[in-house]
Amino acid sequence: MLIQVETLDDLAAGSVFLGTGGGGDPYLNTLIARRILAEHGPVELLPPAELADDAFVVGIGGVGAPSAGLELLPAARQCAHALRQFEAHVGRKVDALVAVEVGGANSLIPIVAAAVRGLPVVDGDGMGRAFPEAQMTTFSIGGIPSTPSVAVDYEGGSELFLQAAALDFERAIRQFALSHGGVVIATEHPMSGSQLKRTIVPGTMTFAIELGRTLRQRSGRAERISPHLREVFAGSIYGEFRHLHSGKIVDVSSRTVGGYDTGRVTIRSFDDAQALEIDIRNEFLVARRDGQLLASVPDLITIVDYETAVPINAERLRYGQRVTVFGIGCPPYYRTERALAAVGPRSFGFDFDYRPLEQLSEGVA
Amino acid sequence: MLIQVETLDDLAAGSVFLGTGGGGDPYLNTLIARRILAEHGPVELLPPAELADDAFVVGIGGVGAPSAGLELLPAARQCAHALRQFEAHVGRKVDALVAVEVGGANSLIPIVAAAVRGLPVVDGDGMGRAFPEAQMTTFSIGGIPSTPSVAVDYEGGSELFLQAAALDFERAIRQFALSHGGVVIATEHPMSGSQLKRTIVPGTMTFAIELGRTLRQRSGRAERISPHLREVFAGSIYGEFRHLHSGKIVDVSSRTVGGYDTGRVTIRSFDDAQALEIDIRNEFLVARRDGQLLASVPDLITIVDYETAVPINAERLRYGQRVTVFGIGCPPYYRTERALAAVGPRSFGFDFDYRPLEQLSEGVA
Repeated sequence: MLIQVETLDDLAAGSVFLGTGGGGDPYLNTLIARRILAEHGPVELLPPAELADDAFVVGIGGVGAPSAGLELLPAARQCAHALRQFEAHVGRKVDALVAVEVGGANSLIPIVAAAVRGLPVVDGDGMGRAFPEAQMTTFSIGGIPSTPSVAVDYEGGSELFLQAAALDFERAIRQFALSHGGVVIATEHPMSGSQLKRTIVPGTMTFAIELGRTLRQRSGRAERISPHLREVFAGSIYGEFRHLHSGKIVDVSSRTVGGYDTGRVTIRSFDDAQALEIDIRNEFLVARRDGQLLASVPDLITIVDYETAVPINAERLRYGQRVTVFGIGCPPYYRTERALAAVGPRSFGFDFDYRPLEQLSEGVA
Repeated sequence: MLIQVETLDDLAAGSVFLGTGGGGDPYLNTLIARRILAEHGPVELLPPAELADDAFVVGIGGVGAPSAGLELLPAARQCAHALRQFEAHVGRKVDALVAVEVGGANSLIPIVAAAVRGLPVVDGDGMGRAFPEAQMTTFSIGGIPSTPSVAVDYEGGSELFLQAAALDFERAIRQFALSHGGVVIATEHPMSGSQLKRTIVPGTMTFAIELGRTLRQRSGRAERISPHLREVFAGSIYGEFRHLHSGKIVDVSSRTVGGYDTGRVTIRSFDDAQALEIDIRNEFLVARRDGQLLASVPDLITIVDYETAVPINAERLRYGQRVTVFGIGCPPYYRTERALAAVGPRSFGFDFDYRPLEQLSEGVA
């Protein structure tokens, strides 16, 4: 499959949906990708199985606080620069790129870098959604080191080459992002083709495109589109699809804490009878209605516009917005004990164990 | 000159004096150095001029909050491990080691690493005192990159390989230290012999030994030893020596902020007429008596025990201690415009320009 100029809007919309609030706003990156694809031609989306076992692949994406990404102008040359510096440091050319997370802007950054270099992008990603930290990737959980890694700032004047364990990498790169405007571009998780095949969440880029196409073609009120989305997810690696809540945002708070957008959004139902609260750390982590748990990481919680079903990133939430909240079971991989230790509620500081979405009380649907 | 077991106590005492509060407590490192020198033999202290221009030298020392160093057991194998990992990463063997700062424990760490490996240590350092941050070294100010650098934690289980600009290095390594007990061992500022000769503060290791010997031989009340210290400094690269204040510590506060020991000590004169306040960030930065500036970075401010003239690191200051405070003009290099931009009061957040010690109001002497 080829990623063409015409594919970009669907990829972006589907990626914001799967990004569960995080991954960064794709607006500017879509504009940039459009120009780059027009100039360099389409990018090949390579099924993992078609990658040679000894191919050399690296992840690439933005790291930092998505709210900072709204104010920083990304540039195609930063993506290409990061990749070039990475190759110089490790002394080896890359054969393909992969998205660290399918989420907002972070689905587009590998496309931009790949287009400039004429490389393919592997169809899949390291999260199947977005998470705030590098050690939460299926790559890390599968034992693939985060480093060697190169990070460059959006101005391209500063770079950091890192070799460290996953948590030390996460802390060092977060600090680098904090010091350079809040968000940086990083290559991470260099790996062989066989390592990738063992750990990737496969097919998520084509799935994001399919999801984006459905949202576009069925355009309309979220509750009306909901059955079509359920149908799309039914044929995917994801689990149960639920309509959790609809209502009006009556409170939204966000602070950048330690390099993350941290906050909470409260959505009152239109009849004012119930309030849904969602805790945020870049991504939507936990949804509770009147104290009752409806969904939590690693299951997906997604907010869309009530009238148009356009998915909304956390940094775009505003008081008064009318929204619909969906919950979707995560890919089975993330429900293993090993994965839950990295991405379950407790790894975000919540004092409860993960319970699968479908075992929790129903939403409103 | 050889650093022998018998030299270590003088080196440690002189280094705490020159460390101006920082550099880490040398007690444990002296014990370790004693054992290592007994086992491996003495270490050659090499005058910079005797180093080949194409020699490969690297700095080594502890980075973090000195208060954390009181609770972490350093080990000779961490120093050797850091050096070995550094050499593996850059693919070149080191010919000599150099102290990043002559200060407390950080004068001893290169000795330990060098003894294990049979390498010489260059007589001099990158500060002529201690400062809290890597970009404050004469090496950095002279344009020598801080990286490639390897840092290892005190348990030896974690390591970080870094390549970055000076400030990014400083932030990343500080973060690494914060995550691993508060202090780590790092190699930094790899350089050639000719680069070293151009930027080093020469002779500070032998001077620290001379200073330590004077303190030991003249042992007694600080005010009585003061003339002897003045004499020792008169023959050195340092400037004017002043007795600034004597009195009792009536308040001392310290918090670890962002990986630094940050605080203030207040010393009331014995007649209760005057109070000297010293601001601390790992090191003693600014001394003011009743609001009047007596000394500031980059000039040296040193606190010694009133009765014994034993120099006291910042993390050892306690309520009720009777102490004497000395001020010493820094080496001329640090008074250049370029150096003051990195180490003057404003670079520590103070809202005033540097004024040389000898132009300020006299102390009590």
